[in-house]
Amino acid sequence: MDRNSEKNQFRGIIPPMITPLLNEDELDFEGLGKLINHIVVGGVHGIFILGTTGESTSLPYPIRHRLVEETCNLVKKRVPILVGITDTAVSESLKLAQTAKYSGASALVAAPPYYFNLGQPELIEYYEYLADRLPLPLFLYNMPSHTKINIEPETVKKLSEHENIIGLKDSSGNTAYFNKLLFHMKDDPGFSLFVGPEEIMAETVLLGGHGGVNGGANMFPELYVKLYDAAVTGDIKKVRELHALVMNISAGLYSLGKFGSSYLKGLKCALHLLGICNDYMSSPLNKFRKEEKSRLVVNLEEIQKKLQASKILTQNKKKDQ
Amino acid sequence: MDRNSEKNQFRGIIPPMITPLLNEDELDFEGLGKLINHIVVGGVHGIFILGTTGESTSLPYPIRHRLVEETCNLVKKRVPILVGITDTAVSESLKLAQTAKYSGASALVAAPPYYFNLGQPELIEYYEYLADRLPLPLFLYNMPSHTKINIEPETVKKLSEHENIIGLKDSSGNTAYFNKLLFHMKDDPGFSLFVGPEEIMAETVLLGGHGGVNGGANMFPELYVKLYDAAVTGDIKKVRELHALVMNISAGLYSLGKFGSSYLKGLKCALHLLGICNDYMSSPLNKFRKEEKSRLVVNLEEIQKKLQASKILTQNKKKDQ
Amino acid sequence: MDRNSEKNQFRGIIPPMITPLLNEDELDFEGLGKLINHIVVGGVHGIFILGTTGESTSLPYPIRHRLVEETCNLVKKRVPILVGITDTAVSESLKLAQTAKYSGASALVAAPPYYFNLGQPELIEYYEYLADRLPLPLFLYNMPSHTKINIEPETVKKLSEHENIIGLKDSSGNTAYFNKLLFHMKDDPGFSLFVGPEEIMAETVLLGGHGGVNGGANMFPELYVKLYDAAVTGDIKKVRELHALVMNISAGLYSLGKFGSSYLKGLKCALHLLGICNDYMSSPLNKFRKEEKSRLVVNLEEIQKKLQASKILTQNKKKDQ
Amino acid sequence: MDRNSEKNQFRGIIPPMITPLLNEDELDFEGLGKLINHIVVGGVHGIFILGTTGESTSLPYPIRHRLVEETCNLVKKRVPILVGITDTAVSESLKLAQTAKYSGASALVAAPPYYFNLGQPELIEYYEYLADRLPLPLFLYNMPSHTKINIEPETVKKLSEHENIIGLKDSSGNTAYFNKLLFHMKDDPGFSLFVGPEEIMAETVLLGGHGGVNGGANMFPELYVKLYDAAVTGDIKKVRELHALVMNISAGLYSLGKFGSSYLKGLKCALHLLGICNDYMSSPLNKFRKEEKSRLVVNLEEIQKKLQASKILTQNKKKDQ
Repeated sequence: MDRNSEKNQFRGIIPPMITPLLNEDELDFEGLGKLINHIVVGGVHGIFILGTTGESTSLPYPIRHRLVEETCNLVKKRVPILVGITDTAVSESLKLAQTAKYSGASALVAAPPYYFNLGQPELIEYYEYLADRLPLPLFLYNMPSHTKINIEPETVKKLSEHENIIGLKDSSGNTAYFNKLLFHMKDDPGFSLFVGPEEIMAETVLLGGHGGVNGGANMFPELYVKLYDAAVTGDIKKVRELHALVMNISAGLYSLGKFGSSYLKGLKCALHLLGICNDYMSSPLNKFRKEEKSRLVVNLEEIQKKLQASKILTQNKKKDQ
Repeated sequence: MDRNSEKNQFRGIIPPMITPLLNEDELDFEGLGKLINHIVVGGVHGIFILGTTGESTSLPYPIRHRLVEETCNLVKKRVPILVGITDTAVSESLKLAQTAKYSGASALVAAPPYYFNLGQPELIEYYEYLADRLPLPLFLYNMPSHTKINIEPETVKKLSEHENIIGLKDSSGNTAYFNKLLFHMKDDPGFSLFVGPEEIMAETVLLGGHGGVNGGANMFPELYVKLYDAAVTGDIKKVRELHALVMNISAGLYSLGKFGSSYLKGLKCALHLLGICNDYMSSPLNKFRKEEKSRLVVNLEEIQKKLQASKILTQNKKKDQ
Repeated sequence: MDRNSEKNQFRGIIPPMITPLLNEDELDFEGLGKLINHIVVGGVHGIFILGTTGESTSLPYPIRHRLVEETCNLVKKRVPILVGITDTAVSESLKLAQTAKYSGASALVAAPPYYFNLGQPELIEYYEYLADRLPLPLFLYNMPSHTKINIEPETVKKLSEHENIIGLKDSSGNTAYFNKLLFHMKDDPGFSLFVGPEEIMAETVLLGGHGGVNGGANMFPELYVKLYDAAVTGDIKKVRELHALVMNISAGLYSLGKFGSSYLKGLKCALHLLGICNDYMSSPLNKFRKEEKSRLVVNLEEIQKKLQASKILTQNKKKDQ
Repeated sequence: MDRNSEKNQFRGIIPPMITPLLNEDELDFEGLGKLINHIVVGGVHGIFILGTTGESTSLPYPIRHRLVEETCNLVKKRVPILVGITDTAVSESLKLAQTAKYSGASALVAAPPYYFNLGQPELIEYYEYLADRLPLPLFLYNMPSHTKINIEPETVKKLSEHENIIGLKDSSGNTAYFNKLLFHMKDDPGFSLFVGPEEIMAETVLLGGHGGVNGGANMFPELYVKLYDAAVTGDIKKVRELHALVMNISAGLYSLGKFGSSYLKGLKCALHLLGICNDYMSSPLNKFRKEEKSRLVVNLEEIQKKLQASKILTQNKKKDQ
């Protein structure tokens, strides 16, 4: 694979898609169709399925494979699809990669195996073993709060020499770390660097980052696309305006629960309230109960008003007709 | 299930069996047979498969199910079998539990789901959801270094009210914590409390613990059984003598690598050197290379001599003929 | 200094003395006198001042120096005094060591400097620098929860070669770690190994540990001394009986608050209720408020009844007359 | 104190000054004079002494007080001085605050007490106790890697109601967290929000942050001031150019050691090589040895060439004549 070919250079907003579910073992197919259409029409540059936001590690394996096939079917090549294959068992990662390949996905994403506490040399061996066997190019996925290991800059540099490894998504929230990666990789434009937390997308793109894998783009894809565009072109006034809206979403929708999962629960609950899909969350998480939900209803309305005032949501409405 | 029935009260040495492998996707069946026979003849009180020592989370799912079936076949009810069903996806845990049930296993063991960072209330909900649906009684498995969450004493107390939850295995190494559990549960003898690290088995049994899930019992089961017996009867002189041998094993075999996985790599390498099974380790771990292996050869010989001097290994040799 | 001389071989129960205070900047001298007498008459083998239990790091420096002098005056050589000199500024540690020396203390205790995140080689350099300049022999103090660094077994081994370093107090609660230290140092009886948490004192002494630096011995010194004696002589029946009392104290008095400081707050509150000293806690901790205090009153009474039933407290009462 | 008064609204580049030392107990007065002049002439908006970069917690107390007096003398009111009073003993913080007040400093900075593991309510009580007694306004200082506690956004919001608390310096590197603070405090311009790591200064100022407390400004103050100015005015082209220089400094000077202290050691070594002051580091840190130093010499020269090419250093040279 030539990672400097145009098709392997990812840029822009690639939402980490939530996984619409009816219950522990069933996809919400209707919701999935609506969600995909909503996101794609919103102008995003790709879709990332089976990430943390997609509750990947909580889903039974048949569901994971089915979701890959169905998403590829529904997207119909309108945007590239990235498939999360993060797993503690490398053979299961490889099987899912095969499903991704024959279904027509474009790339794969893998966080470090998250059970054992690995050293950096063990991590390098792991990724090389994996990348050697993958039928599609691979993004590294840094997620130290969940995997207990940070992919150190020197490790990224070493792994970037593998022709099958084409980028990294950083969900650490640590922009000092991310800026070090950008600096280390500045002479290698074929290596794409994305951030997860939407609260830092604008600023990282302003300083050379390649895009955002932002959960909020499940709800309001246009907002994130416009913010990305403003950041790429250096339109700092527009960036400040739209970034404030993202911070409103973050404060109003992602902080209502008591645990680390507040973001995920808030996002799925909001998508349900927006009429897009079911809000079932797979174990070990549980959807918001009445109290959090009623606070979210209020906050969501306020945010929608602000988005309308900024002419983000009107377009959205038209599109859905 | 009546957890106070005799059949559900586990006591003694229950080795966390390593998983003999030929490669990433194949069990070493010959090694498995030899290993099981070696352990059972050694006098253990049960076998725990698919734990951390069994590299459970690294194994492809078909291998996990196959291992359950094959182990039950080979053990032939000589000792009870406990099956690890730890998983991030609760549906996969339930499937493996079904395989355990129809294969004839006696109980199940589950650590907290290890991807998301859960709060204690979320953890309680998870275990209750799981225990409600299991066809066999369940041991909790505390393993904070790998799961990022400690099962707090209050949580254990709450979960112990569930009739399907019959005990806990603690691999934290923190005996202050374990003694708190023993104290909290002292009026509930149907709730079994085991420790993982063999370095602390003797002392916890001396003070009321119910046994050890000790990796070294894969190699030298008699040693651990005798140490357990001495501790239960309060034969402190014998305890001190045999405990010193366990510490020799810990120092000589489990500390030769550079990372957290030294214990696991050393154990599997030693079993290979003892002629019992293959030393292939599944990704993301790798077996010891030449340097560590040659140091381990020396240490293993010294330990065998000490075990012979203490009359542990002679019996072992006879048994194998 | 000859660490193998008898005077440098510490054994037994050495309570980490709480620091009686009237307010942020004043010692409770009356309470201090009563407390010291209470502890010494209780039969302990030494007193350790200015440890974590003594709120050392919270005290203004003049108070620290004054406490050393006053304690030495009051103890009058009846038992050896160990002085905590843990500090982030090594020069302040050295000054306090001088005060300890001229006041007549016997040894010093230092945890790693707790602000910077040190590597093990940096830690070795620090301790060697310190030990080279101390006028009294030094105990290492392992306290990873507060200092963010574990003194690794290899580091202890290396530092034990320094003639001025005579032992280690481990407050990690991790007995697997402590047993490794005992094993590493087994041929060096001049190196004393103590544990902090009283919940594990009995078992570590049973297996070769040299004693306990147990907070509860501020309240009930005889209990801890008898438990230590029983453990040293291997009287396992007595150990189990007295250990159960210690666990009652731990459960009833140290777990009533919401934060990591519950142990410290409970201990100081109980000493106040026992009429020994003031319960003022220096910032950033605060003494228990009404609710926790009233629960503690109930628990303390129950414990006193149990201690009387076991003939621990009767002796105590006589002694105080 | 009126925190909305102009004099209490801090903005811009406020270098965390390193502390020039001759040895463990002596300031390098000559170096201090040169360093202060170098920084002030470089155009900074203030100087922060006795922070982490100033090795505050490692310095003996007389040195801390002397440094406050001497710095105030040397600065001669050209820029405001902020004094770090972080301590585990609140009385020592208060004493240092008095010295700061009578010496003419403008504000104080305090990280959470760093020994005990506090809960957020305990942290609020601590800061309120402290702020009630301070003679100068206070900045909170978030430094979770060193203090083991994150000052949560809700806690900041609560503390911002105290009239004596006028801002926060965040050294977490986590810009997602910092952006949440900016959002929470957006209607309270009298509350100043600064970041520590220079790798993220530009982007946070672009999105509303008030400045940087950046170590590199000890060496090249003009660079950081110009970068700040470019960010405030939204000159994104200039920001990208100068930010790249900062990343060169970060990569070339702060990553040469093996431990967390590489930044500090590199910075002090570079200042020595620049002829500004001694490179003695107080225990428990140690200055770079030959190997790291010789690599730093090479990197520093390259950086100086780049700064000259960007017309940053020429001005610097003129100024020093």
